[in-house]
Amino acid sequence: MNNLIKLVDESLEKFLPVEAPEDLFKSMRYTVLLEGKRLRPVLCLEVCRCLGGKIEDALPTACAIEMLHAQTLIFDDLPCMDNDDFRRGKPSNHKVFGEAVALLAGDALLSFAPQVILRNSRNLPAETLLHVLDDFFTAAGARGVVAGQIVDMECEGHPEKHSDEKLDFIHDHKTGDLFRLAIVSGARIAGASCEEIKEAQEFAHDFGLAFQIADDILDVVSDFETMGKTLGKDAAAGKLTYVTLYGLDNAKCKLTCLLEKCDVIIDKYNSEILREILNGIRKRIGV
Amino acid sequence: MNNLIKLVDESLEKFLPVEAPEDLFKSMRYTVLLEGKRLRPVLCLEVCRCLGGKIEDALPTACAIEMLHAQTLIFDDLPCMDNDDFRRGKPSNHKVFGEAVALLAGDALLSFAPQVILRNSRNLPAETLLHVLDDFFTAAGARGVVAGQIVDMECEGHPEKHSDEKLDFIHDHKTGDLFRLAIVSGARIAGASCEEIKEAQEFAHDFGLAFQIADDILDVVSDFETMGKTLGKDAAAGKLTYVTLYGLDNAKCKLTCLLEKCDVIIDKYNSEILREILNGIRKRIGV
Repeated sequence: MNNLIKLVDESLEKFLPVEAPEDLFKSMRYTVLLEGKRLRPVLCLEVCRCLGGKIEDALPTACAIEMLHAQTLIFDDLPCMDNDDFRRGKPSNHKVFGEAVALLAGDALLSFAPQVILRNSRNLPAETLLHVLDDFFTAAGARGVVAGQIVDMECEGHPEKHSDEKLDFIHDHKTGDLFRLAIVSGARIAGASCEEIKEAQEFAHDFGLAFQIADDILDVVSDFETMGKTLGKDAAAGKLTYVTLYGLDNAKCKLTCLLEKCDVIIDKYNSEILREILNGIRKRIGV
Repeated sequence: MNNLIKLVDESLEKFLPVEAPEDLFKSMRYTVLLEGKRLRPVLCLEVCRCLGGKIEDALPTACAIEMLHAQTLIFDDLPCMDNDDFRRGKPSNHKVFGEAVALLAGDALLSFAPQVILRNSRNLPAETLLHVLDDFFTAAGARGVVAGQIVDMECEGHPEKHSDEKLDFIHDHKTGDLFRLAIVSGARIAGASCEEIKEAQEFAHDFGLAFQIADDILDVVSDFETMGKTLGKDAAAGKLTYVTLYGLDNAKCKLTCLLEKCDVIIDKYNSEILREILNGIRKRIGV
């Protein structure tokens, strides 16, 4: 696990060096290179390896997904969105570089990331490369993360709009889509069969949802030092979360269920790294 | 010319229908579908035709470039950027949909646009498609429009930073890159030779610069009703423009020179439409 994280960190450095205009690249790098668990790229690389692919082939895509993730964090933290001053224990991007530069850094990452895939994956079959790019655009845009964000916003402070369906939509897109992108791209790059890709998609769905429920629970039970970001904001803002809709116990129960479903596929993949990630979630939440 | 504009308008409608989440798509469509001259898509289609390509083949790319252009307008107008309330004579995106939705609409367009190219250009050779996408990312991002915007911002209100070199950089990227993308993509899709592409690049450079100088001049000499946006803001904000750096007469002189260079290639292309565009600029500025 730590070796993969190190590989991702080094590759992010390599794919995103400081260029001119320096302020812009510094702002892009600031959030991308913040110390993190690199969960999405690690999932991408490990699923690729488990399905018989080469880790190197998935590296550009894995790093591009982390860049896309960083872009969503930069935008999420902006004053007109969640207005958050901290991210991973550090001042958020606009607190360091100002709102305009943060906006442009996020903007730039949205083109930079798919270009990293395109320019560094030319050894993949053209069909695979185009498929990965198409998945990337879907996850990044109006049919992916952005759809989740806007519905999340619309529900905020309007408890009458809360429903299972809305909550599923928000989770599925706001968090789920990037995990799905990471896992399914890893499978595609490995040259997985249709069946294997379908299986990877199901795993991605369960894992993404488990991760989001865990995050909702931690927003209630954890503290700033552990999480590195402002907590308790969901409840304060009247946000729709698993905990606000179902209560803490039911959320934990659902989480246990999803993690057990993930165990099945992880046993099949026989992946120590994926097991470690799942156990990490279990330990943090105490389920 | 009007036929091409109509074709672009209809295709934008087709490529960007209302989907769920409705608010998001309405906001994306609002700026994309604002009545406009469709200069970039028309250039793309016409250059493709002049070099022996089919207009239909270039339509998805032409529309994607207009979507990218709309995204830059939405972000430019945001309060943390130029804070502009009007665009093409209508309230700007964030004045209608709010800042958060406008931000997400621009965000979504940045993935939506290249996906329109990818999904609707599969009849092109894979190499051409990948080349067009690579050009798109370069123009949209940290090595393109965004680079121009950030240097423009940095120079604002700091006359000591003003220089020929900075001004060229800003124009080349902030305005030039989208024209270059439009013209060069048109050439690529037509299957142009290396020489033809080089020629198209030079034409794009001269045309883009001419357009920007004309815009700088109009910011001083035109009025809100003609332009549909707030004017005189460049000078008020201490912005670096051709007029503030060289004076009105020199700017007009430089513009005349560039338009003459464009005439040469337009004669070679034998394009009535490109001639009409150039004469339109001449008429508006009176050169």
